[in-house]
Order: sequence, then C-alpha cells, then structure tokens
Amino acid sequence: MSPHIKGNKKSPGHPLPDSPFMKACRMEPAPFTPVWLMRQAGRYMKEYREMRAKHPFAEMCRRPELATEAAVVAARKLQVDAAILFSDLLVVCAPMGFPVRYLEGRGPVITRPLQKPSEVSRVRTHPQKGEFDYIYKAVRMTRAGLPGNIPLIGFAGAPFTLASYLIEGGGSRNYVRTKAFMYADPGAWDELMKKITSVVAPFLRGQAAAGAQVLQVFDSWAGCLSPDDYRRFVLPHTARLIRALGNSVPVIHFGTGSAHLIELLEEAGGDVIGVDWKLRLDGARKRLGRVAVQGNLDPVALFAPRREMRGFAREVLQQAGHQPGHIFNLGHGILPRTPEDNVRALIDAVHELSAKR
Amino acid sequence: MSPHIKGNKKSPGHPLPDSPFMKACRMEPAPFTPVWLMRQAGRYMKEYREMRAKHPFAEMCRRPELATEAAVVAARKLQVDAAILFSDLLVVCAPMGFPVRYLEGRGPVITRPLQKPSEVSRVRTHPQKGEFDYIYKAVRMTRAGLPGNIPLIGFAGAPFTLASYLIEGGGSRNYVRTKAFMYADPGAWDELMKKITSVVAPFLRGQAAAGAQVLQVFDSWAGCLSPDDYRRFVLPHTARLIRALGNSVPVIHFGTGSAHLIELLEEAGGDVIGVDWKLRLDGARKRLGRVAVQGNLDPVALFAPRREMRGFAREVLQQAGHQPGHIFNLGHGILPRTPEDNVRALIDAVHELSAKR
Repeated sequence: MSPHIKGNKKSPGHPLPDSPFMKACRMEPAPFTPVWLMRQAGRYMKEYREMRAKHPFAEMCRRPELATEAAVVAARKLQVDAAILFSDLLVVCAPMGFPVRYLEGRGPVITRPLQKPSEVSRVRTHPQKGEFDYIYKAVRMTRAGLPGNIPLIGFAGAPFTLASYLIEGGGSRNYVRTKAFMYADPGAWDELMKKITSVVAPFLRGQAAAGAQVLQVFDSWAGCLSPDDYRRFVLPHTARLIRALGNSVPVIHFGTGSAHLIELLEEAGGDVIGVDWKLRLDGARKRLGRVAVQGNLDPVALFAPRREMRGFAREVLQQAGHQPGHIFNLGHGILPRTPEDNVRALIDAVHELSAKR
Repeated sequence: MSPHIKGNKKSPGHPLPDSPFMKACRMEPAPFTPVWLMRQAGRYMKEYREMRAKHPFAEMCRRPELATEAAVVAARKLQVDAAILFSDLLVVCAPMGFPVRYLEGRGPVITRPLQKPSEVSRVRTHPQKGEFDYIYKAVRMTRAGLPGNIPLIGFAGAPFTLASYLIEGGGSRNYVRTKAFMYADPGAWDELMKKITSVVAPFLRGQAAAGAQVLQVFDSWAGCLSPDDYRRFVLPHTARLIRALGNSVPVIHFGTGSAHLIELLEEAGGDVIGVDWKLRLDGARKRLGRVAVQGNLDPVALFAPRREMRGFAREVLQQAGHQPGHIFNLGHGILPRTPEDNVRALIDAVHELSAKR
C-alpha cells in the first residue's frame, strides 16, 4: 500500500456529524462549501496514470488494496471534503449473469447483452453469497485509509442506467434498443427493473454497512428520456430503490444531462440532487423543494485560464446563494486531459471563496 | 432525374400563404397540424439508400440534380407538409478555407482545424463569387420539383455550431477545444463568430432568393453550453445572424439537446423555436413568448410498436394544445434504422389526429 495511506481510528459507518460535507447533505450550515469532484481519482492525475500503467482498470476495481490507494491518494492530494469508492457502475453485471470486458479505449462491453424482452429470465437476482465481498472490503479499507473527518461515498448505478447497459451491451448514442425494449414490452421492462433493483438495493446497503457514510445513485443515462418516459418507465423503480436504502445514510441522486428531469429525480428520492451545468443552481433551487443540491461546474471550465476558472467557480457559489445544502462538484466526471494544477486550484478556490468570515 | 420529380409552375420564393406549414410559422390556424421530419431524406428510406449506393454523400450535396431527387422523393413519398433542401451544415467550411472530407462511418473531418485563437485570420470571409451557386441551383431545382403547396426549407448552421466544427475538426463529445478557445480568448472568439456570421447570413439570404420559403438555423451543438456561456458567447452572434435575414421568410431556430436554453434561443430570434423531447411542449409554451414551436417526438418512438407510436404522436399534439403555431417534427433527425413503414404511419397519424372536424 502506498505510503500516502494512513489509517484512522474512526469506526466504519461513523456518521461524521461535524463534516461540512455531511452537514450540507442535511442542509445544515457549514463553515465553507464542501467540494469533491466526480472521477477525482482519474486519468488526469499523475498518480492514477502511474497505477493504471501497471494495472488494467478491471483489476483496479477488483483488488481492494488498489481501489483503496486510488481513492485515498486522490482525496488526500486534492484536499477534497469527501472521497468516493473507486469502483465501476458495472460491477453488478457479472453477478447478474452478464460478464463485462473492459476494452482499452472502447469502454465496457457486455458479451451477451439482453437481446429481447423474453430474455429477462437470464438476469440472476440472487448473486452467490459473497460475490460483492471484495467491494465491501474495498469500502472498509478505503474508509480506514481516509482522514477521519472525510466521508466516504459508496455508489451504484440506478436501475435504468444498468438496464441500458444490459440491453445495449455497452455505451450507446441513442438508446434505441433500450427504449424499443421498454416500449415493446412494458411488462418485461418492469420485471427487468425490479430484478436490477433487488440486486442493487442490498449492494448499496452493504456498502453503507461496510462504512460508507453516503451513497450516490448514478442514473448516468436517464437524461436520454423524455419526462413522460422517465415518469412511466423509471421513476417508480428508482423510488423503490431509494426507499429500500432507508434513512441511515444520506443519498445523492444524480443523472448526467438530466436538467429537464430534476423535479422527477427529486420525486424519486434522495437527500441531495445532482445538477449539471445546463441548469443554473438558482434555477434548480426554485424548481426543487427542500433538498440539497450538488454541482454544477462544466468539467471543461477546468481547461480555462486560471482566472476565468476562478470566476466560474465564484458564479456557481453565487448561484447556489451561499445557502446551506450545497455540495460543490462538476456537472459530470473530470475529463482525462484536465490540467491537474487547475483541479487543485479549483478546490482551493471553492474553499476560499465560500469560507464564512 | 427521377420520374418521381415533376415540375410545378409556382415562381421561386412564392410565399404559399395557404400552406398549413406556412400558417403554423405565422401562428395562424391551419386545418391540421403540419408535419415534416428532420433528415426525412435519409438512410432509413429505400430510395435514399439506392441513391447512396451509387453516390457518396458529398457528391449528393454537390450535384443539384441528386440533391433535388433526394429531397423531392422523400417529401412526395412521405406526404409531408414541407421539404428541406438536401445539403449539409458543413458546405460553408470549404469556402471559408476549411475543406471537409466525409469519411464513411466516421462523419465529416476538417483536415486542418483551427488550432488556436491566433489562427482566426485563416478564416476567409469573402468566398469567391459563385461558390454557393450549386446550392442555389439545388434550391431552384428542388423548389421546381416539389408540389406547388409544399414549402421548401433552406438551412445553415448557426455560428456556434460551425465554429465548433472549425475548431474540433469534426464531431466532438465534450467540446473541450471549442470551449477552451472561447474561454482563453474571448476577443478572437468574437472575431471568429463574426466572420462565420458574415458568410452564413448572405448564404441563407441567397437560399431564400433562390426560392426557399423558410430558413432553418441549426445550432446543433449549442446544447453543450451552460445558459451563462450561451448568453455570453453565442446569443449576440446568432441574434445578429437572424436579424440579418430580415422578415421576408420565417426562420426556424433549432438546437439539439437545448431544452435548457429555449428562452435564450427565442431571445436570439426566430419565428419558430425547435424543441426536443426533453421538454413537454406545454412546458415549452409556458416558457416561450408568442412564437411558434416545432417538435418534439423522440426519434426512437419510431421504433415502438405502431399503436404505442400513435399514442406518442397523440401525446405530442395534446401537449401542443392543438393550438395554432405548432409544426410537428421529431426532436432530432430520423435514425438510420428506423422502420420506414412507421415513418409513413406517423405522418398519417399526425394528419388524422390533428384534423379539425
């Protein structure tokens, strides 16, 4: 294990009531706006690239000591206010009967995707005992490696996003197969979504039990849907998933490109709603009820000159109104070629500009 | 020329006051909701595939008799209420000094894109005389080949979308170079946008003069921007372009994935605002002023079973409130594998479901 990683004495699952991040999740005032960045352990960072030069992505996810190092090194180096488990949305697929291959430069590929509604029976809902143990171990080790006041975020894909992966077999541009499936056979679609939910809910609870203080549900691809389709085909399932997580840890509910759906994401559940840069945060606050917001800088803002970038960060804080219940983040993951110095400058700027005087 | 194409005696540029489509552009009551589909002359259609088997895409755009056949055959076969010129957003690039190659399966590629702000001087704003004559000829021939009551839509890319192409050199996922360019040197960015506008405005006016009854401005990629960036870097330029078109023909202003920007698109100008499926049309109407709307069926709805698809079309008409000032369309171009029978069934359904009794 890297020398960067030192243990701490907090017990797993400690709620860290004084963490600014946890306060923001609960909409309580915090001394400054907490910040973390989606994909903060990623290619833009030298230490990460060095790890990846030695280990394929799948191995990094699979081996708890590597996942721990990736997550902890990034959190410590950036001085962010939360860490996220190093893992992948698709880790649930193999236990459901859909092995995934990660092809360099092409992204994940599911060898035998769900070709038609009648194949829903292929989806296994009772993973063999212990199939997620390596993830829970990574949660415990990452928790132990983090500073005591830095919460750890566990995560999983939302049912729609995972269903899309199972059906499309990988990334997609227009989600034709997924939508055609749900339009053609809403009954089989509901069954598929229920099966996925029945796997993801205990998986997320298991991460919380292993020490994650927060859970983020990524509906990365729900943004491709119309509001009516989201309400009909997705909302009931995501709502059931989030209800099944109980109230013991805060839940962040995020979807890429889902500015048009945020009220519906809120209705489906979550203590914090992730918002991307398509929506100003003041506008988002108006559309949402009493719920915290996370976001929403354009990841490309990190390619701007330092002064411009600082201005963008200030804008985001102003649009959030310097009110309780804002977690600063990007609207999407950090891009691979982002200048690393800018990332650190952003974290510093958020802390400095939001500090209560 | 195909036997499908027969001339008509309408003079070029005739405003076709009785066309339901033109009525909708002016927000006047029409006997039924007019419909056309973006990319209606496209790969999903047998006749188009047969043409493309013989002619590369660039040749189809370049030769007026081929462009005419593609546009007219599609409009006649589908019985839509408007035709659109068969052409490409990038036809303006070569005259500006940026030749484009169309690679099968990879899309357009600009060989030497704008690498940095200092290269804006490479953009030529005075195309040689006659460089767009082949387009104007295609407009005249298409106009002549269409039934007399079917308007012809001319089109061009909006300045932002064309600037992105010049800078990225082709399609892009995150528009990193484009945004980095505009953040790094707003002055060079403004100069670039002005140069593009100074080429596109006369190009669109030339299409109207050649007989196009309507002009559509495609800001295909503006949806990647935050509202603040759109307002600062794009709106003034698009507004100048649309003002430069005068009031002689209606202008449709459309951007893919720009549900979050529609008030700003309206502010930039246009008689008709294109809306995609991310936004319900009743919601769009509330956010917009007195302006017509075009849209907004999800192109993937055409992959649904016929009955479902008909239900989706009915939904769109209901959300538009069966009010004047709605042009039915998809929220984006028809996808290549769309079942052709469904496309025709959709057109029929729109006409039937919207007919005033």
